Amino acid sequence: MVQKPSIPKGTRDFSPEQMMRRNYIFDTIRTIFQKYGYEPIETPAMENLSSLTGKYGEEGDRLIFKVLNSGDFLKNVNPELLSTINSIKLTSEIAEKGLRYDLTVPFARYVVQNRNDITFPFKRYQIQPVWRADKPQKGRYREFYQCDIDVIGSNSLLNEVELIRIIDEVFEKLNIKATIKLNNRKILSAIAQIIDAPDKLVEITTAIDKLGKIGINKVNEELLRKGLTQEKIEFIKPIINLAGSNITKINNLKELLVDNEDGTQGITELQTIINLIEDLKLSAKVVIDLSLARGLNYYTGAIIEVVADDVEIGSICGGGRYDDLTGIFGLPDTSGVGISFGADRIYDVMKEKQLFKEQIQSTTQVMLVNFGGTEGIYALSVLAEIQKAGIRAELYPDSAKMKKQMKYADKKSISNVLLIGDEEMKSGYYTLKNMNTGEQQKVNLTELITILKD
Amino acid sequence: MVQKPSIPKGTRDFSPEQMMRRNYIFDTIRTIFQKYGYEPIETPAMENLSSLTGKYGEEGDRLIFKVLNSGDFLKNVNPELLSTINSIKLTSEIAEKGLRYDLTVPFARYVVQNRNDITFPFKRYQIQPVWRADKPQKGRYREFYQCDIDVIGSNSLLNEVELIRIIDEVFEKLNIKATIKLNNRKILSAIAQIIDAPDKLVEITTAIDKLGKIGINKVNEELLRKGLTQEKIEFIKPIINLAGSNITKINNLKELLVDNEDGTQGITELQTIINLIEDLKLSAKVVIDLSLARGLNYYTGAIIEVVADDVEIGSICGGGRYDDLTGIFGLPDTSGVGISFGADRIYDVMKEKQLFKEQIQSTTQVMLVNFGGTEGIYALSVLAEIQKAGIRAELYPDSAKMKKQMKYADKKSISNVLLIGDEEMKSGYYTLKNMNTGEQQKVNLTELITILKD
Repeated sequence: MVQKPSIPKGTRDFSPEQMMRRNYIFDTIRTIFQKYGYEPIETPAMENLSSLTGKYGEEGDRLIFKVLNSGDFLKNVNPELLSTINSIKLTSEIAEKGLRYDLTVPFARYVVQNRNDITFPFKRYQIQPVWRADKPQKGRYREFYQCDIDVIGSNSLLNEVELIRIIDEVFEKLNIKATIKLNNRKILSAIAQIIDAPDKLVEITTAIDKLGKIGINKVNEELLRKGLTQEKIEFIKPIINLAGSNITKINNLKELLVDNEDGTQGITELQTIINLIEDLKLSAKVVIDLSLARGLNYYTGAIIEVVADDVEIGSICGGGRYDDLTGIFGLPDTSGVGISFGADRIYDVMKEKQLFKEQIQSTTQVMLVNFGGTEGIYALSVLAEIQKAGIRAELYPDSAKMKKQMKYADKKSISNVLLIGDEEMKSGYYTLKNMNTGEQQKVNLTELITILKD
Repeated sequence: MVQKPSIPKGTRDFSPEQMMRRNYIFDTIRTIFQKYGYEPIETPAMENLSSLTGKYGEEGDRLIFKVLNSGDFLKNVNPELLSTINSIKLTSEIAEKGLRYDLTVPFARYVVQNRNDITFPFKRYQIQPVWRADKPQKGRYREFYQCDIDVIGSNSLLNEVELIRIIDEVFEKLNIKATIKLNNRKILSAIAQIIDAPDKLVEITTAIDKLGKIGINKVNEELLRKGLTQEKIEFIKPIINLAGSNITKINNLKELLVDNEDGTQGITELQTIINLIEDLKLSAKVVIDLSLARGLNYYTGAIIEVVADDVEIGSICGGGRYDDLTGIFGLPDTSGVGISFGADRIYDVMKEKQLFKEQIQSTTQVMLVNFGGTEGIYALSVLAEIQKAGIRAELYPDSAKMKKQMKYADKKSISNVLLIGDEEMKSGYYTLKNMNTGEQQKVNLTELITILKD
């Protein structure tokens, strides 16, 4: 029986070319994480469903991939329950594991489970795939990588500053022009308190976000429609209209929220961060953006989001501070702050902007043509010498037609081809062909290694 | 509700220390794979169950983790089927995806699916986790990494030689003393033909394996019990008793199997490989071992297995040649050869033999003590300069008690601590403390960078 090969929708294979580019991104991020003193951990792909459910909202629970219990999973299921044909109820009976939905909840679980072995503040990074049963669409996959970096056990704002510096260094290194947007949950809370409508926060941040596109009058109309009174709208208009430099924004906010404790603290935090990074001369722009409201029920202080300039793809990095992430697993009052880099979107940005350089392909540096027989065996010994010198090299495995071997080198973007025929074998001088220029030269082993080492 | 955190049995978290050691193993293997011209691919964690089932035998099918279909998975299930309470039948109705069980079948699927974009011979490597619902026990996990390397589309024995060279280089680099065992499926087939009992092959290879422990008489008894006639046993006794150098073994086998076509070809293949690697002076011992029968229904030529000397842990690497792996997916007659490194067992060997060097921990090189206030802000700017020079450094985020900060540096095995108090800030000469020797010295920024760069 012959099967037509396919993979589940929303998942992807990665070809060598894609892999080398992806690894370049991961290696860049990893190296920078380590430079700032963060250490790697990994958690299992499968977590107990009890660790995952209830952490991502009702919609999130639905999107977790559940793993069927092994063996006779129906053995202990009540036949009556079975006869009700209720997928949701049956799930909890036949599946006790699920695939990791993000890296944050497994990290919280890890911290609590290993709290006695961890030195706090714990600075960790984690680069692993996550799975979501989302409807697949352009740029949204059911399996994708997250690159998370968090500090837990310290409420110093230096951590926020450090994460912003890391964001800046990553995108500078990758040549991506980026804007870092900052907000603070406490300021949003203050606004909600002032308008007596904590449940309307999402509407307000959406309205702020739309200001540039639809203008203040339309925003006004929309907020009225959403149930805010004109009086409240008048009060927050200056907030929606907030413009100018970061310092101007902070000064205006200070005036507007002067009587609100949360607001004042949020502004102080924002100002401290802005002041500290001012001295560090970052490459990326940093802007205060009150429309930033990601993970509203989750973050308690700083909210951070990064977008690539001139690319319409959404955020490529984001995060914030959370004061009680580990509480649900039994470790309360442990403040943390973290961000997550979206490797897939970063890849897409780099592809669109043509930022992948040729050198990222760490392919074979030289291919030895296989003439078979004694020449083939001789070539094998030359190959071993070249590789011993640390050069990436391969001998074509079959003594196939020259044309076929050259085509292979060409397809694999191998820049150099070495020919060792009978004559070359006797003289010890081999023919080295540069595949880019077509030039040929005769070289001995020492010369060959010197040329390839460059 | 507070949950006691836990992970599914048979799975593991990896701490920073473990991760750095694991990454050292993966990086070593990856670098060597690339040096030999192999390119990376990755495939999704989830495959369609139709791609996985039937490839690993009945037992294997049972051990595949199945992923529950998303949404209302019972919607289209026949209520009658549900009422029979048959887990196996229900599985195929409610789960169409499964977790990768190994890297070989996904690789075969990948090759066929992408055959038009691939340049053959295709040399690929793949380092990813796999999942098996095996009973967890010491050294056996439900999630573990495989490091696979295969050439597909070439039947040259140079590929076998290359893989053996790669094995040798990997274990030499990791400082693991290893023995590479070689066999050939065609020789085993010849033996089966000669005794007219192809179904007794497993018994024979087991008997050969036991010879050293129980002696020829007990092996004889066992084979009789297993149903072989004394006449057949007499015939294969010289094979079971095969000893001496590789060349002696080959010469003896030649005599014994002289009339058998398969046998003769198998011996020629084995001899060619042995001759070619003889010239290359490997570090590992290479021995012909006819008891080697892994994946008997799968391999068609060379069979390779590696064990660590003086460590009782089973094989740490293995593989062989398969002539029709891609046939099931619609691409017949494509010969391939590959091996798989078992990262978890390699880790265990290195731990037991204490082969992990201190340097593998790529931890922070210097920690700056945080005195808070102006000193803290000044330290942040020094930190930025040090990091710009490529040094892994961190500033303790809180202005906590000195003792706490020093303990943090100690726990994280940070070798250097930098103190910048009021006096140091004014003079530009900082106090650098070596945590290993306890020595202190005064250094300016330039000196500091020079010292840490060493």
